[in-house]
Amino acid sequence: MKTQRPLILISNDDGVNARGLYHLIDCVKDLGDVVAVAPAQHCSGQSSAITVDRILRVTRHDDYQGAKIYSVNGTPVDCVKMAMHTILDRRPDVMLSGINHGANSGNSIIYSGTMGAAIEACMMGVPAIGYSFLSFAKDADFGVTTPIINAITAQVLRESLPANVCLNVNVPASAKVNGVKVVRSARGYWTEEYAKFDDPIGRPFYMLTGHFHNLEPDADDTDEYWLARDYATIVPARADMTAHDCVAEFKTKYEQ
Amino acid sequence: MKTQRPLILISNDDGVNARGLYHLIDCVKDLGDVVAVAPAQHCSGQSSAITVDRILRVTRHDDYQGAKIYSVNGTPVDCVKMAMHTILDRRPDVMLSGINHGANSGNSIIYSGTMGAAIEACMMGVPAIGYSFLSFAKDADFGVTTPIINAITAQVLRESLPANVCLNVNVPASAKVNGVKVVRSARGYWTEEYAKFDDPIGRPFYMLTGHFHNLEPDADDTDEYWLARDYATIVPARADMTAHDCVAEFKTKYEQ
Repeated sequence: MKTQRPLILISNDDGVNARGLYHLIDCVKDLGDVVAVAPAQHCSGQSSAITVDRILRVTRHDDYQGAKIYSVNGTPVDCVKMAMHTILDRRPDVMLSGINHGANSGNSIIYSGTMGAAIEACMMGVPAIGYSFLSFAKDADFGVTTPIINAITAQVLRESLPANVCLNVNVPASAKVNGVKVVRSARGYWTEEYAKFDDPIGRPFYMLTGHFHNLEPDADDTDEYWLARDYATIVPARADMTAHDCVAEFKTKYEQ
Repeated sequence: MKTQRPLILISNDDGVNARGLYHLIDCVKDLGDVVAVAPAQHCSGQSSAITVDRILRVTRHDDYQGAKIYSVNGTPVDCVKMAMHTILDRRPDVMLSGINHGANSGNSIIYSGTMGAAIEACMMGVPAIGYSFLSFAKDADFGVTTPIINAITAQVLRESLPANVCLNVNVPASAKVNGVKVVRSARGYWTEEYAKFDDPIGRPFYMLTGHFHNLEPDADDTDEYWLARDYATIVPARADMTAHDCVAEFKTKYEQ
């Protein structure tokens, strides 16, 4: 009797040409059959955006290390939806997103296209993991992430994840990772966010910049705390934004 | 002594020309000074997307009923960031988003640009409310929403909201609203999502379609349940996706 290998769906937000996508395939190709469906173009900061007013096309690319590679001219969430509805011939056993070039810690999870794709798969009932690496360097050495990605992915394939929960994994860009911590997202916000310019005829324009202001830098149960100390972090993320602990109190305040 | 009126920041995802924006201004203009900063174009389904690779410009439009109106050529979140960083001269007392043309119930909150804008303000510490109306009709009569929007906004101005919590308010498109319920988001997912076409030279393309599959249609503590029964619903939403109840168990499983 032939046993089917697990099916691993991969997407990202850096696009089908990003090195991180191929590194992620290298990390997990021995764990199952891999199909990657990635945005045709760079989609950083696309969150859970969906394309509602343009047409989408699917393009097949050359295989890589036995993995089938497709691109979609849309967002990371479009890629996951398109994979599930038109590309894959069976349900994936796990969905992986990344590996992202740059951190998705703190409240960046809200803006992250990497996590947008993982949350989308999660809402469809597919165990999902977003992987991010804390370096934007073009020649970044992803090697330190390999055993971490392989171990977490293998464990999720074995044990699955609770319904409606996915994992947000960040790996520091250091020569040695001290360990893996399960934590919550650090609370904070982005500040000093726009650089202002004047165009050649004197009209102002703006570009996004700024930095993350961590509201709780000493909290040792947060991702920011441990990433700064060269640990990889796992935040379990729930695809349900309801503030359940507020419902009862708000009933007395707001119901009519 | 002159007391300053509350400052009300408004944005939306249907764009600066949407009727819902001006209806929302009409609903709250007696509660404070209003400044609206809305996307130059339609941004439905933009979630918490941010513009990272294009320049942004701010355009001043004609005032409406004493409210100052601006547009930004970006996403709803860009509008809130730009308002806070470059347009407003003081912190707003409340941020309102909408009124959206169409529902943001169930898991649509994840994709919603309307709620993306509200969540952004919430993360900056500004009490925020997203308003949505369950009609896409061009000539929809928003009248039924007026007393609901006015009452909830006035209450939040008086009492504020807990840190990191905003409100997702949906109003049914019926002649009479039976009341207001505080609930959680119904669990579900979108299905049968793409219509397939062939272009004139035979190449396939796709457009988003599909419908929401409610996994718990009989749950009377969910938004979908009460909206179907002509009640308005309030979901308290938390701008933190951490699945806090999973952290302890996952520590034993995944830490290294």
